[in-house]
Amino acid sequence: MHIVFSTGDIHGIGPEIILKSVLALPSGEDTYMVAGSLKALEFYRDLLGLPVELRRIEGPEAIAKIAAEPGVLHVLSVAEPDFIQPGSLSKSAGEIAMRSLETAATLCRDGICDALVTAPLHKEAIALAGYRNTGHTDFLAGFFGVSSQIMLFVDPVSGLKVALATIHEPLSMVPELVRTMDMDGFFTTLAGSMQRDFRLESPKIAVLGLNPHASDGGVMGNEETTVIRPAIERLAASMQIDGPFPADGFFGAKRYRNYDLIVAMYHDQGLLPFKVLAFDTGINVTLGLPIVRTSPDHGTGFDKAGKGTASERSFLEAAKLAATIATNRTQTTG
Amino acid sequence: MHIVFSTGDIHGIGPEIILKSVLALPSGEDTYMVAGSLKALEFYRDLLGLPVELRRIEGPEAIAKIAAEPGVLHVLSVAEPDFIQPGSLSKSAGEIAMRSLETAATLCRDGICDALVTAPLHKEAIALAGYRNTGHTDFLAGFFGVSSQIMLFVDPVSGLKVALATIHEPLSMVPELVRTMDMDGFFTTLAGSMQRDFRLESPKIAVLGLNPHASDGGVMGNEETTVIRPAIERLAASMQIDGPFPADGFFGAKRYRNYDLIVAMYHDQGLLPFKVLAFDTGINVTLGLPIVRTSPDHGTGFDKAGKGTASERSFLEAAKLAATIATNRTQTTG
Repeated sequence: MHIVFSTGDIHGIGPEIILKSVLALPSGEDTYMVAGSLKALEFYRDLLGLPVELRRIEGPEAIAKIAAEPGVLHVLSVAEPDFIQPGSLSKSAGEIAMRSLETAATLCRDGICDALVTAPLHKEAIALAGYRNTGHTDFLAGFFGVSSQIMLFVDPVSGLKVALATIHEPLSMVPELVRTMDMDGFFTTLAGSMQRDFRLESPKIAVLGLNPHASDGGVMGNEETTVIRPAIERLAASMQIDGPFPADGFFGAKRYRNYDLIVAMYHDQGLLPFKVLAFDTGINVTLGLPIVRTSPDHGTGFDKAGKGTASERSFLEAAKLAATIATNRTQTTG
Repeated sequence: MHIVFSTGDIHGIGPEIILKSVLALPSGEDTYMVAGSLKALEFYRDLLGLPVELRRIEGPEAIAKIAAEPGVLHVLSVAEPDFIQPGSLSKSAGEIAMRSLETAATLCRDGICDALVTAPLHKEAIALAGYRNTGHTDFLAGFFGVSSQIMLFVDPVSGLKVALATIHEPLSMVPELVRTMDMDGFFTTLAGSMQRDFRLESPKIAVLGLNPHASDGGVMGNEETTVIRPAIERLAASMQIDGPFPADGFFGAKRYRNYDLIVAMYHDQGLLPFKVLAFDTGINVTLGLPIVRTSPDHGTGFDKAGKGTASERSFLEAAKLAATIATNRTQTTG
């Protein structure tokens, strides 16, 4: 598989964690490359003394011939900065981050690469560069013309997987969004991903309630009785799905260990337990796109940039999982 | 200090965890007693072979003379059952649970006892017994004529303390409740409790945002900018208070270790991380009452009742903390 990395903001820790990951990735058949700034990668390699050989890719047509080679990172230069200043917010870094992302996404869309791993963007830098869509999710939605991406969080160490029914929404909008969402489509997409991407033939899915105590039978809110439970009952005919569970007790009693996937109704409900249980190794998989995309579960780390102290752990795991999912998707189910 | 226990539902694990706690409590000056069913305590003591000497209290006036004695539990009989059937829902157990609670609360109100520790109720049993207020919180609010209790969760092992701005409310009502609550009164009560009950002269308080990423500067919701941050800025003149923090990252990065108290805006936001970090030892302290009240952080455990397998850990810690808080409240601040 050909896995392509976008560098994210070159004034953050993106280039550093990419270089460190190249040194830590298992040697095998998968190749890893960057669409981004060659100069930025050289800068951090030399600054931090990371023994990575950077090899320029002459053009997209050269990618097919690239073979896996330990310690080598192939780079398709898409834009180069006038200056590099770790930890600073700049228009040119924002511009390069978006060019990197766009090229990497194009390589995957065109079948030249098999999976995309994105290093973190800085939304303010992107805005300085004049882009209206200020995040990966928005950009990819527009680029691929999809409206319903699903954020899945995976901890490769424990196997914990958490998906969100709603993502970056004001809390006041969450109940209405839950009441009106296409539950059947959402869970069908998730179950399909578990089967196709994770090779779980009959995944066990747990669904959390929206309200405290999952509303205790309707005492505190009614979305469990009017929407969530009916959806679970309909879907139980075609998949292994249980709930709605009171979220706090579910995680407190470690019931998540009995399931392949936990579905939270909103951002903090899923990410509070996930980050407590898997902070350093957690990674993000975007479902609902026509391509494979993973990313580390942290930000640009401007405060750490250029110091050599950033942990590549999450990016490394994101790269490995991208290769695994890409491989799984090419295999037809038995 | 005289600490009084209510038994909760005698068909649950309440009597068992009380008896086990008596055997585990440190011998000292504090005395522990029950207002409830003597017969139920004898039943579980004999069934489970727990070497506790049960001594009948002849009347409230006898309590003042009780002295601490290891392995002895003094019991004021307030109502006795016709039958005891562990794990079953019954009207008489609901009736006894409420009589136990009412008597124990009265002993504290009248200054005969110094703190109340409540074993778990079963809300359906209480309803069968014809009570309209089906939980401890509602009962105590009515009994003491208070409208704004605060639930504080404490893990005596790690020292983690989490308070909730809203408690058992439908999620759809939370944003409006946060917008309209008396933030200044709420935080002043909390800071006062930290000083008086926990002997923290200058407690450090962290406040979580309501929205994902604490709204990222207003991008997802506005309660942080319109209500929470202004309250923090006002209060910062008189106490050590920081925030609003994005909840997931705050717990993921273990920033809670830098604070004496974390304030969550709603039930699952506080209890998800709390229960993951402190499931077995977590306890609940009710603030805003004229008396000291603690309770274990679990339910009646009907499935475990009468089997001898219930863990007394949370109840034991609740009893110890009740004694500590009662002692702290009697001491005037230096």
